[in-house]
Amino acid sequence: MGMKTLKVIKIGGDIIDDNEALLGFLKDFSNLKGPKLLVHGGGKSATDLAKKMGVEVKMIDGRRITDVHTLDIIVMMYAGKINKYIVANLQANQCNAIGFSGADGNSIISTKRPTTPVDFGFAGDVTQVNTEVLELLINQNITPVFCAITHDKNGQLLNTNADTIASELAIALAKTYQTELYYCFEKSGVLRDINDEFSVIESITPDNVQELIQNKIISDGMLPKIKNSINAVNHKVNKVCIGKSEMIFNPFTYFTSITK
Amino acid sequence: MGMKTLKVIKIGGDIIDDNEALLGFLKDFSNLKGPKLLVHGGGKSATDLAKKMGVEVKMIDGRRITDVHTLDIIVMMYAGKINKYIVANLQANQCNAIGFSGADGNSIISTKRPTTPVDFGFAGDVTQVNTEVLELLINQNITPVFCAITHDKNGQLLNTNADTIASELAIALAKTYQTELYYCFEKSGVLRDINDEFSVIESITPDNVQELIQNKIISDGMLPKIKNSINAVNHKVNKVCIGKSEMIFNPFTYFTSITK
Repeated sequence: MGMKTLKVIKIGGDIIDDNEALLGFLKDFSNLKGPKLLVHGGGKSATDLAKKMGVEVKMIDGRRITDVHTLDIIVMMYAGKINKYIVANLQANQCNAIGFSGADGNSIISTKRPTTPVDFGFAGDVTQVNTEVLELLINQNITPVFCAITHDKNGQLLNTNADTIASELAIALAKTYQTELYYCFEKSGVLRDINDEFSVIESITPDNVQELIQNKIISDGMLPKIKNSINAVNHKVNKVCIGKSEMIFNPFTYFTSITK
Repeated sequence: MGMKTLKVIKIGGDIIDDNEALLGFLKDFSNLKGPKLLVHGGGKSATDLAKKMGVEVKMIDGRRITDVHTLDIIVMMYAGKINKYIVANLQANQCNAIGFSGADGNSIISTKRPTTPVDFGFAGDVTQVNTEVLELLINQNITPVFCAITHDKNGQLLNTNADTIASELAIALAKTYQTELYYCFEKSGVLRDINDEFSVIESITPDNVQELIQNKIISDGMLPKIKNSINAVNHKVNKVCIGKSEMIFNPFTYFTSITK
């Protein structure tokens, strides 16, 4: 008997920030058959809340510096407001879900990022994923819903990249399931020409990725996503798909597929 | 073979608001053997955050009016910051825990309270408790940690009294476990004389409770707690204990015991 297929789906800010799009996605996601797991980013909400509370938002190279006040805001917004909103709306669509941070079920342990060369504050790099509790729930048709917060097993919560959370979960669960990882974002995939939605690169592999990076076709914000994707397929994840969320539900949608 | 004993423990604002007391409690709680479940209130944190965000706190008869902004604050603070802080610190003490709102695992469904005579806004009255997921986890030695938020199964989160959450969970789980409910607060129990910590009433039953209420020995803030307690022992909960959290860990502590 073959392994069951598990879909690990990550949604980003473009869906989170658009309530109608989010509710539409959650309805489609609920109707998806078979084992599944959702990872969500935070969108602009944390920045908006920080402004309201008078907490300064510090970024270096497009990455947030998580000081102690920012961590509070992120935990409240991601693990609180967004995560529970998603779970409540999945329940409304008859999809039984449970919200997770990495602390819940001790599922994702991370270590605080070294403070040199840049001190990112309470940012965590994943060191261990424990899948027992997740498998227990998934096998009962219950869907884990992850926000991008981890813990260090010493009581400290840490802000962690949501793309990385998704790939690390997909990799860890690949020992039990045939795992597929979907990165949903606002574009139709990795584009040859960033201004041309029809220039989707259909297939990326560990073999052709270096050339795409050297030619600057993959750069900036896409680079970490691709690194996470290549890391995933190099660690037994069957395939990674990058594109609009429609790619999951509509077989006629273009997207970028990353396989080994 | 008899049923296993499950301890349902509710901690209130006095512990939540005192970080040292909270960490001490979580350490003791982690060392507690056998099936257990934690319910936490919110303390002053939500009011503090509301002030910071310029959201007006409205109370009627000591009860919060939950408008849409207040609900956001409560969800962020209770399900986000406090719940994840507790879970992370239980993990640090080797107690495997998972944070829950009533939406998670569809565990507690409520209905929005009628708007007459007083419109409490997004306040929920519990209508159904589903214990399957909780039992699945408890039987794997994983401890559910509940904040006092429920959902209406139509996507709406609702603010719910934490004492009621604790008694409803204890009642629902009493069909599977010998259930004990512990209400921890700042006093040593129900006091005959509110100014005398040594006047703890040792035993309350459905038979003597009316007299205590008529004589105003039980009044004000204690009244809903006692009603929840009597309701619990009338619905197969073995006993309810009211007092300082020490009552759970130290056999020489005074507390009030409510039994049938």
